[in-house]
Order: sequence, then C-alpha cells, then structure tokens
Amino acid sequence: MDNGNDRFKYLKLAGKIREKIDRKTYLAGERPPAIQELHEQLNISISTIYRAYVELEKEGLIEARPKSGYYVRPFEPNKLHSVPCHISPPDPDKIDSVSVARSVLESISSPKLLPLGAAVISPDILPHRQLARILKEISVQEMRSINRYATAEGAPGLRRQIALRTLGISEGISADDILITNGCMEALTLALKTVVQKGDIVAIENPTFCRLHNLMEQLGFEIAEVPVDPKNGLVVKELEKILHTRKVKACLFTPNFHNPLGTLMPDERKERLVTLLNRHEIPVIEDDVFSDLHNGKGRPNSLKVYDRKELVLTCSSYSKILTPGLRIGWIIPGNRFKEKVWKLKTSVSISTSALDQYVLSRFMSSGMFDRYLRSLRTTIRKQVRDTALAVEKHFPKGTRLILPQGGMLLWIQLPHGVNSLEVYKRALEQTISIVPGIVCSASRDFTNFIRINCGYPVTELIRKGIATLGRIVDELCMESHSKHLLVSGAKNNTQAHVESSFSLGCTPLLVEGSRS
Amino acid sequence: MDNGNDRFKYLKLAGKIREKIDRKTYLAGERPPAIQELHEQLNISISTIYRAYVELEKEGLIEARPKSGYYVRPFEPNKLHSVPCHISPPDPDKIDSVSVARSVLESISSPKLLPLGAAVISPDILPHRQLARILKEISVQEMRSINRYATAEGAPGLRRQIALRTLGISEGISADDILITNGCMEALTLALKTVVQKGDIVAIENPTFCRLHNLMEQLGFEIAEVPVDPKNGLVVKELEKILHTRKVKACLFTPNFHNPLGTLMPDERKERLVTLLNRHEIPVIEDDVFSDLHNGKGRPNSLKVYDRKELVLTCSSYSKILTPGLRIGWIIPGNRFKEKVWKLKTSVSISTSALDQYVLSRFMSSGMFDRYLRSLRTTIRKQVRDTALAVEKHFPKGTRLILPQGGMLLWIQLPHGVNSLEVYKRALEQTISIVPGIVCSASRDFTNFIRINCGYPVTELIRKGIATLGRIVDELCMESHSKHLLVSGAKNNTQAHVESSFSLGCTPLLVEGSRS
Repeated sequence: MDNGNDRFKYLKLAGKIREKIDRKTYLAGERPPAIQELHEQLNISISTIYRAYVELEKEGLIEARPKSGYYVRPFEPNKLHSVPCHISPPDPDKIDSVSVARSVLESISSPKLLPLGAAVISPDILPHRQLARILKEISVQEMRSINRYATAEGAPGLRRQIALRTLGISEGISADDILITNGCMEALTLALKTVVQKGDIVAIENPTFCRLHNLMEQLGFEIAEVPVDPKNGLVVKELEKILHTRKVKACLFTPNFHNPLGTLMPDERKERLVTLLNRHEIPVIEDDVFSDLHNGKGRPNSLKVYDRKELVLTCSSYSKILTPGLRIGWIIPGNRFKEKVWKLKTSVSISTSALDQYVLSRFMSSGMFDRYLRSLRTTIRKQVRDTALAVEKHFPKGTRLILPQGGMLLWIQLPHGVNSLEVYKRALEQTISIVPGIVCSASRDFTNFIRINCGYPVTELIRKGIATLGRIVDELCMESHSKHLLVSGAKNNTQAHVESSFSLGCTPLLVEGSRS
Repeated sequence: MDNGNDRFKYLKLAGKIREKIDRKTYLAGERPPAIQELHEQLNISISTIYRAYVELEKEGLIEARPKSGYYVRPFEPNKLHSVPCHISPPDPDKIDSVSVARSVLESISSPKLLPLGAAVISPDILPHRQLARILKEISVQEMRSINRYATAEGAPGLRRQIALRTLGISEGISADDILITNGCMEALTLALKTVVQKGDIVAIENPTFCRLHNLMEQLGFEIAEVPVDPKNGLVVKELEKILHTRKVKACLFTPNFHNPLGTLMPDERKERLVTLLNRHEIPVIEDDVFSDLHNGKGRPNSLKVYDRKELVLTCSSYSKILTPGLRIGWIIPGNRFKEKVWKLKTSVSISTSALDQYVLSRFMSSGMFDRYLRSLRTTIRKQVRDTALAVEKHFPKGTRLILPQGGMLLWIQLPHGVNSLEVYKRALEQTISIVPGIVCSASRDFTNFIRINCGYPVTELIRKGIATLGRIVDELCMESHSKHLLVSGAKNNTQAHVESSFSLGCTPLLVEGSRS
C-alpha cells in the first residue's frame, strides 16, 4: 500500500540510499549526501529527506554523530563469496525431520530456549495492546454475530481487507477470490490436494522450509527438488530439465523472500517460470507469507501477475508477521480451482474460527495494521542486519551468509566439515534453538548450513547466544580438522565442489565470519 | 459431572419421573405422584422433589394447574409404529450432496431462512455475555501469552478442562491423552488419515450426517454402510456380516445420540461392538459431539470403556453446544495412534487458534460452562418435545418420528411416496431450511425422511414454519397419490418393504402426524 503515495516518499528515498550503502557506493565511516544537497538535486522537501535519514538510522545503517551529522555505520564483509547451493554429500545418518521440527516448535513455547529456531517475531514487537483493546471493545451484540459458524470461504469483511492489500497480485483480485483457512499450512494443504493425487510428483525448492517435507510425506506426494540460486531464486533452467525427465504434476515455490534463503525472485525470472509452467499446463502453488516484509519498495509481484491460464494458487497468512495466536491464512486459488478448493475446505474443516477472523478484520480495517506493518518492516530490517553483524563477529572464518532481500531469516553456511545437526544438538544443550540446514532439504543437502531467526532484537542475551553458537561451530571445526588429519588419504576436492555452484558476481551483500 | 453429586439429586429424580411419563406409566391429564408421597416413599427431601417437578415443568412435561397441583401434559401419539431403516429404493436422480450441504451451511448465516436445517443452537441461548466478559478481561499480559504458536497438541489448561469432563470415557484419561483440533471435523479427518489409506473401506452408519459422505469422498475412502436401528443404534449383526464379505479397515460411528436418529446405543451393545472390532483388530472412530446433551443421567459411556486394544479414537467438540464461532475440537486417539495423529496434525495445520483455546479454557475453568450446560440440557429437551408436538399437529397422517434419547435433532419419516428432496426445495422457496434424508445416506436411501433441528425454541415463527412444512408434505402426498392413480399397473409392495424393517416392539416414544 506504500507505493505511489506521497506520504511514503521518504521510504522510497530511504530505499534508494540503502541500496547505495549496500552496494558500497557510500562506504562505512563516510557521510551520506547532505540533506541540503539532496533537496536541491532531487527536488524533495527537506522534511522528507530528514525522515528518510531517521528511518535509516532506526535500521542501524547510519548513525548521527554529535555536531557532525550522519555517517554510514561500519558493516564490512571480509571477503566476497557466494553461498553455494550444494555443499556436501548427504549425511549417512537418517534424520527424522519431524522430530527436529517438533523440537523447533516446542522451543517457541519454552521460555528457556533462545528463540533463534522457528521463524517468529519477538512478543515484545507484537501489538498486544491493540489486539487486547479490540477484544475489550467487542460488544455482546457483536459476540452474537461471532458465535455462529462462519461460512467456508470466510468472513466477507476480512476477505475484503485482504483483497485491498493484495492488489499487487493482480488488478482483479476481490474478496470473492479469497478463501480463509486455518493458517497458511491449511491453505497449502488444500492447494496441494486440489491439484495433485497421492503418489504424484510435486516440484519443490532445495532448500525449502522444513515443515514442507513433513507435509509432502504426510499427504503421500513424491518430491522433485529444484535448486535455488541465492541471488535470483529458483533456477528455471534446472526445473525445465526436471520437467523433461520426470512427470511433475505441480510445483510449490516461494518466489518472494524464500525460506530459508531470503531471496526475492526478479520479475523477469518470475515471468519465465510462469510462462514455462503455463506451457506445460502445470499448476504452481505460491507460498507468499513473507511478502509483507519487503525492503520498502512495496509488496513484490505475485506469480499470478504472469499467469495466463489460472494455474497459480497463492497461499499466505499473517501468522508470521502479526500473531501466530490467531490461526488465519488464506488462499487465492483462481477461477479454475476455486470450486474444488471450496469443496475440500467445507468437507475437511467446515470453516475457520469466527472469533479470529473478526479480530483480524477489525485490526485491519482500523488502520492499526498498516501502521504496525510499516514500523515492523523497519524493526525487522534492523534486526536482520544486527544479527548478521553478530554472526560476522562471533563465527569463525569460513562462515558465510548473504543478507536477505526481505523476510526475517538468515541462512548461514558454516565452515566445511561442520555438521549442522551436531551444532543443533549442542546448541540445544546450551538452551539455544536453531534450524539445522539438513532438515531444509529432502535429499539431505546443506549439512553445514543453519537457519537463524531474526525476529528478535539483538539484545545482550541474543548476542551471547550467537557468541555461544560461534564457539560451538569453532569446536566442531577443530574436531573436524583433527578427524581430517587422521583420514589423511581422502582427496580434498570439496572446495572445488563449492566453487562449481552458482556464481553470483561480486554482490556486496555478503558477510563472512571474522574470528580466526 | 452431575453423577453421584447430592446437589443434582433432583435431576436424577426428574429423570425417573420423565421415564415414567415417556413410558405412559403416568398418562397425560393424570397427576404424577404427590410430593408428600414421594418424600415418604423415597426418603428424599421435599425441596429436592419440588425442584424435580419445577424441572419437569420447564421441560413442558407437566403443568401446574391453579389450586390443583401438577398434571402430565398431553402428548399423545396416535399409533405406535417403528421408524424403519430402509424405506424406498434409491432416487434415480443423482444428487450433489455437497451443494445441498453448502445450501444448509449458507442457511445458517442467512437471517432470512428459518434455521431448521443445520444442527445449531439458537443464538438467544448461547452465553454471549459471559464470553464477551472473558474477552473484555483479557489483559495485555495475557494477550502476550496468546500471541504465540500454540503447541500442536494444544494448550495444557484446556486439555485438562476437557479431561476433567470426559472421565466417563475411562478412568485413565488425562490432559496428555487429548489433542486439540480445529473443530470435530479436523479431529475426524486426522483419525481417518491415521488409520486408513486412500482407497480403503471405512464402515459408516446408514443414515449418518451428510457432511461425512463429503469427507469420505474428499479423502478418497470407500464406504460400507451399516444400518442403524432407531432404538438401539448400530446393528452389530449387520456389521459382522459386512466384515465377512468386505475388507473393512476402520469404522466411524456415533454411538451416543446418533445424527440424525438421536439414538443412544445401550452399553451392552457398545460392548458387543467393541469386542467384535477388537477381535478383528479394526480401529473405530467415535464421533462424540452430542454426548453432553444427555437426558439427565450423566454423560453416556464412550466406546473406549470397552476397548482392550487401544483401537478406539474418540473425537468431539463444543461447536455444537457452546458456540460454532470458536473452532475447537479434540481427539483422544489412545496410545497406539497418538504419535501418528500428532505428526499429522503438526504437518497439516501446525496448531489450533491460541485465542480460541484461551477463551474456551477460561469459560470452562470458571464454572460458567457447567452451569450453562445444565440449563442448556433442560432447554434443548423442551425444544425437542415442543418441535415434535408441532410436527404431530401440522404434518399429515403417515408421518412418523421417534423422540430422540439425547441431542437436538428430529428424524422424521414422511408419508410414503413423498420425495424429501422436493420438500427441501419447496421449503427453501418458503425460506425454510431443512435437511433432506437422502443426503444422510450414501446409497441414497431415506428419500421420504427429513431431519429437523430443534436448537431453537418453538416460537410463533418456528411453529408457522413447521405448519408450512406440513402443508408442503400434504401437497406432495396428494401429487404422489394422483401419479399413483395414473400408473395403475404398478404393484403396491412398498408397504411390505416398510414392515420388513426392524421391529422395535411397542416403544411408547413415537409420535405420528395427526392431520388427515
């Protein structure tokens, strides 16, 4: 909703300056352009420029020094390297990803674990007061309207609010195109069961979020994994190859702020992807939960924009960004699949909580939601940078990550030989929760990757936790090194394997561990 | 929870007197035993007896006449007949039961239709004020605990409250045995997917609730239909025969207050059923949503009581009796299936609304729930009788029903030749919603049955609606009669078919239409 609105000009400007800082046009320690200078050059009001700088300051990109103005804060990656896609052979030990997922989920409700695992936002950021006020103001008369079955498709008011905010998907989306679900997982489940049969092959990303593998297994679908390039997202060429060799019946992708990579697929690639799948008449399910956490330039395009055959089913929810306590998600199935999705929803779960729908609808229609979302974007962006800086400081050399283009996750490559499942286990012993990379891949790749949640501000506690993680990785590095010395005959060709992966060019968005 | 508690002695006494009225020991127009007499005979305090009589008066069973005391109110069935199970051959027209179900569901949210279709309670009876007060009292601090992912199994507090009230299931049930779901439909879905594979055969009742067929179809299961005897529930002998001829992998039954029949399966038959299924190692899913609407003698036994092999999975919810606005159900899967159900739930829908769980848990722990439930039982019992009386008055001869032993539904047999789908259509034109019997049967039996909801008090509006239904049935009777005269060669053997069904003996719980 920010796009094209004068009121949010400052965000656009902040975005431009941010890009220049990220791309090292403005270096750390240097001063960004003076306010007066920008005012004259760009014909933008001084107050707008000032607001943009305050915004960047909030994000931790620049800092005000007394009597001296703004300076770019230090954020120095030591070396520029890509995060490769495939890094090491599958782990021989079978891992029950369901129990890791369970452990991750349990860590959320356990106040004893440091919440770096699941993708959740700190409770301190969530709008408890506003939501409590909405509950307080629900009259007995309104309660009467809540205390009934909602229709299967969901409350019209809520669907309208969602339609208003998903205009980016395509001009024609209205309340009638949206069906409310019990969170995004139910939306994905409905979408999958609508377009594929048990035993069919579904193409998914590698890596992807660990819950997806459990879901595919439980629903009885086969998986074809498509690699993801950390800079541009899903590798369409690879998908094309797979389509020639395997009978893929549907795809499930996350083009906007991929989980775990954080990658935003460029529009040109989205178009290529959808055109390819349209040509093969293959439905594609789009997981869109992180789109609202974009970096200031408006909600990125949905795959629907490029769809000519009603083959894109978009699923999303606000569980990740507003509150996981309300189980509200939705699906925009398109005309081709609408009736089938509806029938499935009404058969399997009848309807979605009327109370939850009412509360969310009120929160959105009051304007509180948009205010909350604007401030949330700034907060999360800062937290992601702060977390990345802490990783850079505390993790050993050989650690690498790319700053995500949106969302709230960091995908971290650990030095070669470090088994992230071991990191996960030792971290749990130190009451720290993380996601080991291996559960993000059906073929058990990414054994030396971890995913870290940046939903929490980097307090002293979080910083200490990250330092502990760094020490654990250190220990494992050394253990791996001594093992390596024992098995002296082994060919050291893994490095080559790393380099053979995607070349990203010298993008300056990379961070590397600094401790040696 | 009423059982064995002195405070609820009067309810027990009321139950005994009610039974005597139902069984015509005390006839209409006669006086029930004098208070003094009962006091001396049974050694029960006068105030307890008085409360029992007030209770029966509330239910409409007896009435106080000025200066004369209590009298049994008239409730005279004209003839005693059983409601047979199979009444007419399947309708040739294919009926899309999903669209009928959709129409029924839509009728609930439409204030323009008379709500005799879906099994819902009048909003005037629901505890809006109490629920609104709970919402109002949720502090910001409590909101913080709500605004997080609930664990897959659900909030411990709520599970404890449910465990406290399902002791009847078996002594050992604790919070740990219960898993919270998005309503009972999700519980049934999880249970089915846990014990059967796509393409497997599941035994269900005939008739049963119409949503179940949609669910089975959507999940891709085959169906074996077992007839239900209106007096004693599922016919175990028939099930046994089916087990010999077809490879049944699981059963899904409603032993307590069957939908639509309202039948309570006697304990002896429950035991026989579970013993049979235990012997064959066949899991049985029990739909338990109406158990709390029992007629005053405590919650009836669950099938679990007779289970020796952890093969009973009990599913329930309070959507029907408290509010459909909170989507909360639960499953008690037993130790054998617990882990599998948990994995499925966490994969498919992660968790259930934390807000809904909190509100329900508070309502239950405050004591409001038990008070509400006691008064609800009395109200519903009266409404069921009043509705039955209105049917007796306004429906033509040949209409028959049995007063249900619990729950809130009436299953009405219309005169032979009346197509209930036509009744459904004409009723909709008159803005009245009912459930045509044909959607309660996969083999499309019960073409001349309808199900009527008694969740609403019989106001003038409802009475008029029932009168309109009676007129519609009248019209169709006459139309069917003139058709019959035209097709004079047809053998009239349908009556014999009727009589060949279950003989129930002369149970006096039958009502018959009186208009000629």
